[in-house]
Amino acid sequence: MIQSTLGIDIGGTHTKYGLVDKQGNLLMEGNMPTSEHEDVNEFLRVLSRNITSKFDAIDEDFELKAVGVGVPNGNFYNGTIEHAPNLNWKGIVPLAELLKTHFNVPVVLTNDANAAAIGEQVFGGAQGMDDFVIITLGTGLGGGIMSNDKLIYGHDGLAGELGHLNVYPEGRPCNCGKNGCLETYASATGLKKTVLELLEQRTDETPLRGSTFESLSGKVITDLAVSGDPIASAAIDYTAKILGLKLADIAAATSPKAFFIAGGLAKAGNILMDSTRDYFEQYIYPPMQGKIEIKLSHLMDKNAAVLGASALAWGQLSKAIN
Amino acid sequence: MIQSTLGIDIGGTHTKYGLVDKQGNLLMEGNMPTSEHEDVNEFLRVLSRNITSKFDAIDEDFELKAVGVGVPNGNFYNGTIEHAPNLNWKGIVPLAELLKTHFNVPVVLTNDANAAAIGEQVFGGAQGMDDFVIITLGTGLGGGIMSNDKLIYGHDGLAGELGHLNVYPEGRPCNCGKNGCLETYASATGLKKTVLELLEQRTDETPLRGSTFESLSGKVITDLAVSGDPIASAAIDYTAKILGLKLADIAAATSPKAFFIAGGLAKAGNILMDSTRDYFEQYIYPPMQGKIEIKLSHLMDKNAAVLGASALAWGQLSKAIN
Repeated sequence: MIQSTLGIDIGGTHTKYGLVDKQGNLLMEGNMPTSEHEDVNEFLRVLSRNITSKFDAIDEDFELKAVGVGVPNGNFYNGTIEHAPNLNWKGIVPLAELLKTHFNVPVVLTNDANAAAIGEQVFGGAQGMDDFVIITLGTGLGGGIMSNDKLIYGHDGLAGELGHLNVYPEGRPCNCGKNGCLETYASATGLKKTVLELLEQRTDETPLRGSTFESLSGKVITDLAVSGDPIASAAIDYTAKILGLKLADIAAATSPKAFFIAGGLAKAGNILMDSTRDYFEQYIYPPMQGKIEIKLSHLMDKNAAVLGASALAWGQLSKAIN
Repeated sequence: MIQSTLGIDIGGTHTKYGLVDKQGNLLMEGNMPTSEHEDVNEFLRVLSRNITSKFDAIDEDFELKAVGVGVPNGNFYNGTIEHAPNLNWKGIVPLAELLKTHFNVPVVLTNDANAAAIGEQVFGGAQGMDDFVIITLGTGLGGGIMSNDKLIYGHDGLAGELGHLNVYPEGRPCNCGKNGCLETYASATGLKKTVLELLEQRTDETPLRGSTFESLSGKVITDLAVSGDPIASAAIDYTAKILGLKLADIAAATSPKAFFIAGGLAKAGNILMDSTRDYFEQYIYPPMQGKIEIKLSHLMDKNAAVLGASALAWGQLSKAIN
């Protein structure tokens, strides 16, 4: 009998899941759309049906011990999703409680970036590290800070909202209601907005003038930057400068051994990472210079948040025993 | 026999110390200048002589169990002072080791703001809080972040350098070698510099035009601001805006229950605190609005760092026993 936990990573667009053993092996995995479900109960019914139908196809004997969930604006303390601007379900959603009715095992929940941090520590590049930070660069920017071998949740479970560090307080409007938050610059969406701004301000010729906002992507822009396109290069440089500066601030506060960068935009290539590292070293408190690595997540091809959500569930089980 | 630890708070100008019992009562206290001692060994000889001579005057029977030290750029992991820009002793100073030869008990060391955080938690306003931040506003700005009931030291012991968060990367030169660090704006020195800048830029009449940089102080400026002086008021507003913004960033990352503000500039009055709170609420991630307090340290009239250094020593002793 293989003991296993179910890891679920709920994103704004897609939800991924996997049944994971204690060594991080996936016994089963799958995904489904998130955004087409306006009602959370309906979403959970479809999700549970999809998952249990895949359970039937697993050859090995297994036992489901617990469920772990990573979700934007997830509150670890309450098991709730709280005012998530990028999900359809508004207000406070008692997701852990709702999910428990479907699987009848303990359900534990945290925000998606925190889940990715746990995944990185248990199965990825942060193994053996007590102090590190994960940054997820996708549609938005998420953060998970591990310090003294524990996630920083803060007094209310909301810590790690690094996408909402202030960059330009009078700057771009953010989904959170403020202006000029980090994720309006350093994310796939932010990079695209920077391209539009540069196209407006400059006259350089570039194939980007033939693109719509919707057809643009982090990958298109970084590929053009690598080939020397002036607007794409300037957009990457602008993004890297802001990201490097803010990582330097996070480092001054928490002095991590390393930053791990995950998510779609990180996958797009090395040019953003290299440039971010240069600015980071320029803006970091000098006694920390050259001591903190900025690396790609080691779980880029796997799903760090699914593995992390599963590891969170394993961790919760071992606490329940002790 | 009263068991006690010695708390020492080494500052750029003065060094304070106290012999403290487990309840935080001071059996003895004193202070001496720091800055006139160019050689650290000479400084420690005078300090030890001063302290032991005061031991003789204590009526009660006491036993010294350990020494705790708070010092700028103190590294908890190594017991060293590392490249402190505001002290005479350059490079890496093995202070804990040197001090042990004088007292023959365990010596433990951390940076001054971390010591103040421990003091606030054990004896001050943060009793029972697992997640809070202390900010010391003096000549510079120091930070201590408590999360999950533990100080954030980071991988190398250097975390909490909140004075070196980036405000304007091309801004005022900082002692650390960078430009535009938070402490060049939000500190007694920063406030004085802001007054000079405003005197240069504006034509308002103000008694501040008769002041030298050296005669200015946080107290002089805040008193003038309270009485409606336009330059002093503008300087306080500018300082509060930057401080409020950066506290909002620290909150987004660590979501503390409260910020405690300590140090000479905090003592100067409520006007800076009130204005900082207003800007903080404006710049905070909206789901955190109205949930995080900004308070004066409860140990303003005592010495939070001396009490904290002593509490650090008590904590170390209890770890050694367990």
